[in-house]
Amino acid sequence: MSLYSPRLTRLIDALRRLPGVGPKSAQRMAFHLLDRDRDAARLLATALDDALSGIARCPDCRMFKEDDECRYCGPARRQSGQLCVVEGPADLVAIEQGTPFRGRYFVLMGRLSPLDGMGPDELGLPRLAETLGEGDVQELIIATNPTVEGEATAYYLAEMAKSRGIRVTRIAHGVPMGGELEYVDGGTLSHALSGRQPV
Amino acid sequence: MSLYSPRLTRLIDALRRLPGVGPKSAQRMAFHLLDRDRDAARLLATALDDALSGIARCPDCRMFKEDDECRYCGPARRQSGQLCVVEGPADLVAIEQGTPFRGRYFVLMGRLSPLDGMGPDELGLPRLAETLGEGDVQELIIATNPTVEGEATAYYLAEMAKSRGIRVTRIAHGVPMGGELEYVDGGTLSHALSGRQPV
Repeated sequence: MSLYSPRLTRLIDALRRLPGVGPKSAQRMAFHLLDRDRDAARLLATALDDALSGIARCPDCRMFKEDDECRYCGPARRQSGQLCVVEGPADLVAIEQGTPFRGRYFVLMGRLSPLDGMGPDELGLPRLAETLGEGDVQELIIATNPTVEGEATAYYLAEMAKSRGIRVTRIAHGVPMGGELEYVDGGTLSHALSGRQPV
Repeated sequence: MSLYSPRLTRLIDALRRLPGVGPKSAQRMAFHLLDRDRDAARLLATALDDALSGIARCPDCRMFKEDDECRYCGPARRQSGQLCVVEGPADLVAIEQGTPFRGRYFVLMGRLSPLDGMGPDELGLPRLAETLGEGDVQELIIATNPTVEGEATAYYLAEMAKSRGIRVTRIAHGVPMGGELEYVDGGTLSHALSGRQPV
């Protein structure tokens, strides 16, 4: 006899596929939903169905979109002449939420990592090349993460844009605001030093 | 303009109602489901629907059940003459998984806590009283948590059973297996000392 009844097992297994959820958390979530918050369970089921049927990718910026018009690809944004490349949707949201940048985006949905089967095609770089070829983009802002793969991706993107005569910039990496030099790691500190600016 | 599109907002809000999930985790889960694992999203939606429609409470032990017969209330378990009271379904599963106990259970789905509106009726104690009155139960094993409310609940349950002449036991509290005396808190150590057993 398995530990749970079949339906409960299926629910727990499904919850375990969420990122960051292990067997104990999944069990806790399932019991919480069944015991105390059946409304939330109903809501979640509906929201999932709705999202699956209604949310697609914008062919231009590869961000999720659910209306006919992508909210990140409008003519106002096109006019800015800036295009910011990020690794994932969460990065886009972070920039949109934390900065005044209101240009266009391109979401790679990953980073160059040949060992994981992530090449230029998987990241939609042919589409990005088309966009860069349209002549609207004056500056390509590269906001990939400062990891080995992120840096490799940044290098690749920079070459793409430079070959088309487009200005390329990379967001600054250095000591975070409120951070203390004493506790910042060496790599970050070297970046901060080599990227010093005249005041 | 809100940060996310309406469907995405609804999905993130629904995920936030899971226990232990904050805004950042919910966003990460939503993006993961939409971007990388649409199968998991589909599976979860179905599992939730199935669970909501198919899982009910056993009127006798208050555990979740989905078949006509409750798997924890069969005649074999009744014959053991033992009934173990736990606070929640996860506690039942932990005992079932970790111990050879195969008697009946009673799941309180909470603990006595008048300030939170949890009284004897909310915990189904009238039903437990009926069960105790049937004469099958020779021993009531109290396995509520060793918290203030858990202890109060244990005291209440013990009185209920004693007034019916039923033997009452409480699971032992003490130093956990593999624990070191040096690092065990004072309350646990006092419990362990006062609950010492002849060897």
